[in-house]
Amino acid sequence: MQTVAIVGTGLIGSSFGLALRRAGFSGRILGVSSERSLQAAIECRAIDEGATLESAASSSDLVYLSQTISAIIDTLPRLAHCLKPGALVTDAGSTKRTILQAAAPLGDAFLGGHPMAGKASRGASGAEAALFDGRPYILTPSSPDQMNLPHVRSFCDWIQRAGARLVVLTAAEHDRLVASASHLPQLLSTTLASTLEHSADPAAAASVSGPGLRDMTRLALSSHDIWKDILETNGDEIAAALAQIEDHLAVLRRDLSGPAAESSFAAGRDFSLRLRPGHQD
Amino acid sequence: MQTVAIVGTGLIGSSFGLALRRAGFSGRILGVSSERSLQAAIECRAIDEGATLESAASSSDLVYLSQTISAIIDTLPRLAHCLKPGALVTDAGSTKRTILQAAAPLGDAFLGGHPMAGKASRGASGAEAALFDGRPYILTPSSPDQMNLPHVRSFCDWIQRAGARLVVLTAAEHDRLVASASHLPQLLSTTLASTLEHSADPAAAASVSGPGLRDMTRLALSSHDIWKDILETNGDEIAAALAQIEDHLAVLRRDLSGPAAESSFAAGRDFSLRLRPGHQD
Repeated sequence: MQTVAIVGTGLIGSSFGLALRRAGFSGRILGVSSERSLQAAIECRAIDEGATLESAASSSDLVYLSQTISAIIDTLPRLAHCLKPGALVTDAGSTKRTILQAAAPLGDAFLGGHPMAGKASRGASGAEAALFDGRPYILTPSSPDQMNLPHVRSFCDWIQRAGARLVVLTAAEHDRLVASASHLPQLLSTTLASTLEHSADPAAAASVSGPGLRDMTRLALSSHDIWKDILETNGDEIAAALAQIEDHLAVLRRDLSGPAAESSFAAGRDFSLRLRPGHQD
Repeated sequence: MQTVAIVGTGLIGSSFGLALRRAGFSGRILGVSSERSLQAAIECRAIDEGATLESAASSSDLVYLSQTISAIIDTLPRLAHCLKPGALVTDAGSTKRTILQAAAPLGDAFLGGHPMAGKASRGASGAEAALFDGRPYILTPSSPDQMNLPHVRSFCDWIQRAGARLVVLTAAEHDRLVASASHLPQLLSTTLASTLEHSADPAAAASVSGPGLRDMTRLALSSHDIWKDILETNGDEIAAALAQIEDHLAVLRRDLSGPAAESSFAAGRDFSLRLRPGHQD
């Protein structure tokens, strides 16, 4: 791998560039983005220089699409005609079925990806070489065999050297799992916060709040323009996850002093502990 | 104020003792609790010595009830006959209407309270003098006039010297507000986590999770034995808050790609920013 093109040099793309450098990548890193975003990525040393999509794609061994989902879907067909032979295209989009459909013409040259990493700040200025450290990095090959291809194995090596933990899923498995584990938490945070904002006295609710409410409304800082594409491309799985939560809340509401509450607390604690190995009271 | 009795020397009670000391209180602090809990509170210097409820109440100027709600309700009638004249009884229970009813025989000698502070760990071993720093401390007088009584004013002074921010509400206002701002976040966290625990593959959901899910399931670590009393004594307000969230989730679910989602994100972000003054993207 001599040359890498990062298309979309925001937080994830720029962090990927920095993580590659930290992992020992000494080749060229090209950026494809707006002028302002390229400038920020050059300043933080995430990329070496800017380029057009076509010139970057025709000279790169890896094309890393870290744009919004809809921009990735727009970019994919433009790559079919300018890709360097043997190159790999991958993406960092938060849903995978729609993107894999759009990438079908690229065949084995495309590997779906989703690094489960991020932070509240956006843009290259927040980029960190350590962003992927210990985080799951989901890959969604179009077939199990794709994982054995040389350019895919080389990419997997770099991802692991960048500190991430590889998880291989089908696109459908991915979309179902993140609907529950990522999209649902976001929508619960947003709905909790918007319900409080529309309550009789949101300032009073804020004034008596503790660290619990603060935790529970951190995700609600996210803006709709980031989530629009996710809600559109994973609507069926998200709606199913929401319907299930509505059911469980209704069961709990009707039995607040009974066994439903007790078993919900027990199971909830069990799951919470899965995310906190070694937790002690 | 010469002598203080802390009844229930767990996290809150012991932190109150430490906060009083840090604020300059040089009188005696008695503890009323189990032998083991008293030992831990003495070791961390939250109290000077243990005592029975009757002897502590008859010699103290302030009786601070930091037990569970049901234990507070059991303790209140026992105080009526042994309280030192002019003493104030206050509590740190998480709901207020039921406790105020139980305290009615004490008249102006009782002032309801609820420090909006806490942490995941329980017991005196986690106690901190700084636990109340900058946190809201809600007081729920039985009448507005009660706030002007000398023993109440003295207590308010100590609370503020302990670093807390006083908020005065009626018991009904308190219970409605905390149903939304505290009990609802807890039940959403618990229900999210229990739903994931009961999903097809909870280990997979945990393995692809990011910091967002971790935040959203921290409250789910709480055990039912702490929440049982809250759910029982604030069930009506909690049920109303849950029903509202269910409605809002259903509206969102039916319009994931439409204006409902967009306005929910905008209002949610506005509320989240109320808890983060000075936040910048």
